[in-house]
Amino acid sequence: MSNVKNIALNAKKASVVLSSLDTKIKNEALKNIAEALSKNIDSILKANQKDLELAEKSLSTGTLSAAVFNRLKADENKIKTMIEGIYDVIKLDDPINKILFTRELADGLILKKVTCPIGVIGVIFEARPDVLAQITALAIKSGNAVLLKGGKETVNTNSVIFEIISEALKKTDHFPENVINLLFSHEDVSDMLAENKSIDLIIPRGSNNLVKYIQENTKIPVLGHASGICHIFVDESADFEKSIKVIEDAKCQYPAACNAVETILIHKNIINSFLPIFISKMKEFGVKINGDEECRKIDNTLGIVENWSNEYGDKELSVKVAEDIEDAVEHINTYGSGHTDCIMTENQNNVSFFMNMVDSAGVYHNVSTRFADGFRYGFGAEVGISTNKTHARGPVGLEGLTIYKYQIFGNGDIVSEFSSGKRTFTHRDI
Amino acid sequence: MSNVKNIALNAKKASVVLSSLDTKIKNEALKNIAEALSKNIDSILKANQKDLELAEKSLSTGTLSAAVFNRLKADENKIKTMIEGIYDVIKLDDPINKILFTRELADGLILKKVTCPIGVIGVIFEARPDVLAQITALAIKSGNAVLLKGGKETVNTNSVIFEIISEALKKTDHFPENVINLLFSHEDVSDMLAENKSIDLIIPRGSNNLVKYIQENTKIPVLGHASGICHIFVDESADFEKSIKVIEDAKCQYPAACNAVETILIHKNIINSFLPIFISKMKEFGVKINGDEECRKIDNTLGIVENWSNEYGDKELSVKVAEDIEDAVEHINTYGSGHTDCIMTENQNNVSFFMNMVDSAGVYHNVSTRFADGFRYGFGAEVGISTNKTHARGPVGLEGLTIYKYQIFGNGDIVSEFSSGKRTFTHRDI
Repeated sequence: MSNVKNIALNAKKASVVLSSLDTKIKNEALKNIAEALSKNIDSILKANQKDLELAEKSLSTGTLSAAVFNRLKADENKIKTMIEGIYDVIKLDDPINKILFTRELADGLILKKVTCPIGVIGVIFEARPDVLAQITALAIKSGNAVLLKGGKETVNTNSVIFEIISEALKKTDHFPENVINLLFSHEDVSDMLAENKSIDLIIPRGSNNLVKYIQENTKIPVLGHASGICHIFVDESADFEKSIKVIEDAKCQYPAACNAVETILIHKNIINSFLPIFISKMKEFGVKINGDEECRKIDNTLGIVENWSNEYGDKELSVKVAEDIEDAVEHINTYGSGHTDCIMTENQNNVSFFMNMVDSAGVYHNVSTRFADGFRYGFGAEVGISTNKTHARGPVGLEGLTIYKYQIFGNGDIVSEFSSGKRTFTHRDI
Repeated sequence: MSNVKNIALNAKKASVVLSSLDTKIKNEALKNIAEALSKNIDSILKANQKDLELAEKSLSTGTLSAAVFNRLKADENKIKTMIEGIYDVIKLDDPINKILFTRELADGLILKKVTCPIGVIGVIFEARPDVLAQITALAIKSGNAVLLKGGKETVNTNSVIFEIISEALKKTDHFPENVINLLFSHEDVSDMLAENKSIDLIIPRGSNNLVKYIQENTKIPVLGHASGICHIFVDESADFEKSIKVIEDAKCQYPAACNAVETILIHKNIINSFLPIFISKMKEFGVKINGDEECRKIDNTLGIVENWSNEYGDKELSVKVAEDIEDAVEHINTYGSGHTDCIMTENQNNVSFFMNMVDSAGVYHNVSTRFADGFRYGFGAEVGISTNKTHARGPVGLEGLTIYKYQIFGNGDIVSEFSSGKRTFTHRDI
């Protein structure tokens, strides 16, 4: 039996006990973790320093990018924010054991639909020192056991944080063993993806390539998104100033985010008036623009678009003429990633059309795509952003880590009495 | 481009139009289908007769089982029930465009969570002449396009029903083309399972082997269950008479059903008193019993259990001694299929323990497992029974064919005004 299989089986057993744990015990565990982390900030920073020293070597040999290097750095502020995040999770409602409905099926026969944890969740994340504690907190609050595999670049930081968490959980009365598990080797990832009998959900947190690799190599449901190809369609009735303001925010406020805009579609009736303003403003903001043939006819300084499904992740945009709103919607549904798309318009009929016809997790009117985020939606926590069409879509809060079971309470009730007509169903919600 | 790829792409386009169709138009389409089927019962029966004649040959050469042969027969009553089913779907609430919540994110910035169809659903079913019309009705009501692939044994019946449905949809004003699609060849199944770009969900309706094959051969989420290994645990405080009554119903009322019981676990403290009564009653009902070593020590006429995860699908049962309720729960969580499991007990603490600790879609107290069914739960329709831990679990009604999108309505709102502290989130549900 592989090491991971064994860990996954033990996690599955732990998850059953965890699933019915009192909110009080779960919150106590989270408090113990937060306090232990606070007491050990120095040792976390020391471990992170080791990771940084090793990373510097990879940086100098070019095997590590500067972007990754910057992400893996933990300073005191970052650790404190991470600890505050745990206190925030304590404050959240317990999503487990909520009764979704109670129905009298027949006299004395009661059906309840009750929320419960999914079970065992596998989380694969790249070089970020704060993900381990954050996911641990969300898992405990939602009653799920987890197998965590972090990037090799933060192995020292993760080990220390994991040790602190494990000690804190050991000290928590009635908290089961084997709930939080850390994996280390690269082979553990493929072993984990094969455990579809014990692991119920995989959450990848990292690059598009990581997510794609995982989606293509497991039978376990994957919650997440491989890419964020977000669009803003500037309709013929759009307010130009508002549109520039929204596009600036959607592209420049944090260009590396998945909810940053990549493609601007402009209605053909305003292309001659809007495009020059748009181009000059984007140049001012330092945004490089690539255009389709028609746009490049108007301004031959624009670059060529190689691929309409490209996620720049940087201050760079594609721009295209749309024949009409139908054309814009078709482009979005064809080349988009179902993440978040926006229409800039003052025409209410077009708002409705766009809201209905765009098949994305987020469909916005006159709003920056950067709002696609669990905290901004008021979920109090974010597990990730999903472009799936089943289970959970868009920014996912704690609810996305839950499912439900049906409980029936009776007194010797049998189906044959109903099929014979001796008894009848009442189906009355109570 | 394969034929199926083309059909799936067209279905995807159709699904976008279908997703925002008025309830009135969808119900009109369903009414037209029901009326057209009623007018053409004779031609359906004639086509079914052809299928039966071909099947008789396979029956005589042994390439078709008697059970399958019986299932594929359509008589006038069966067709009329099928048509009534469509009228029942018309009466159901439209599950689409339901606002799950409306939240003010900040002054003038409104977030709505709205239900929408999943998109394109692939349905693979075996020899049943009534599935095509039933799934068509559920798909139309929930706004999903479908690719249907029926068993080769009912190809004539399915073709005629499909033609009738297609004609009825053509006559329905504003109803888009390419919503309902029928596939014919065996290769179409593997082509369909490969279309994870266009098909959002696969629903298999058929044997355990069909479902297992599909689960193992697609990246598309699969809604269903491969097997139904249901248990009844007879606790030490169980009422014997009630237990016998419930076990009889759970095994004998329809032994081939997935929610029929397969394994009886008996608390060791009542094994000597309950087992002999149980065995003599089961013999009376014509049920063959296989036991573990301890049960066979008490009665050496019992058969040997080869596999605790066996689904007999017939009047046959496994029986086992449980050391205590923990042992029973562990057996269920290890060898069960997460379908439906029941405790017979008069001890309320044990009811709570069992309800919490058994990790199954349905957890019952003193009730036959045969109640696990969408109609009996009052859903008005059943898409299937799922043992998944994400999206939909247990009997699945129309709701299981829906997901949601987030809509935001604003007026030039940007994230940087919130991150700079110029504006603040209110997060107020309205």
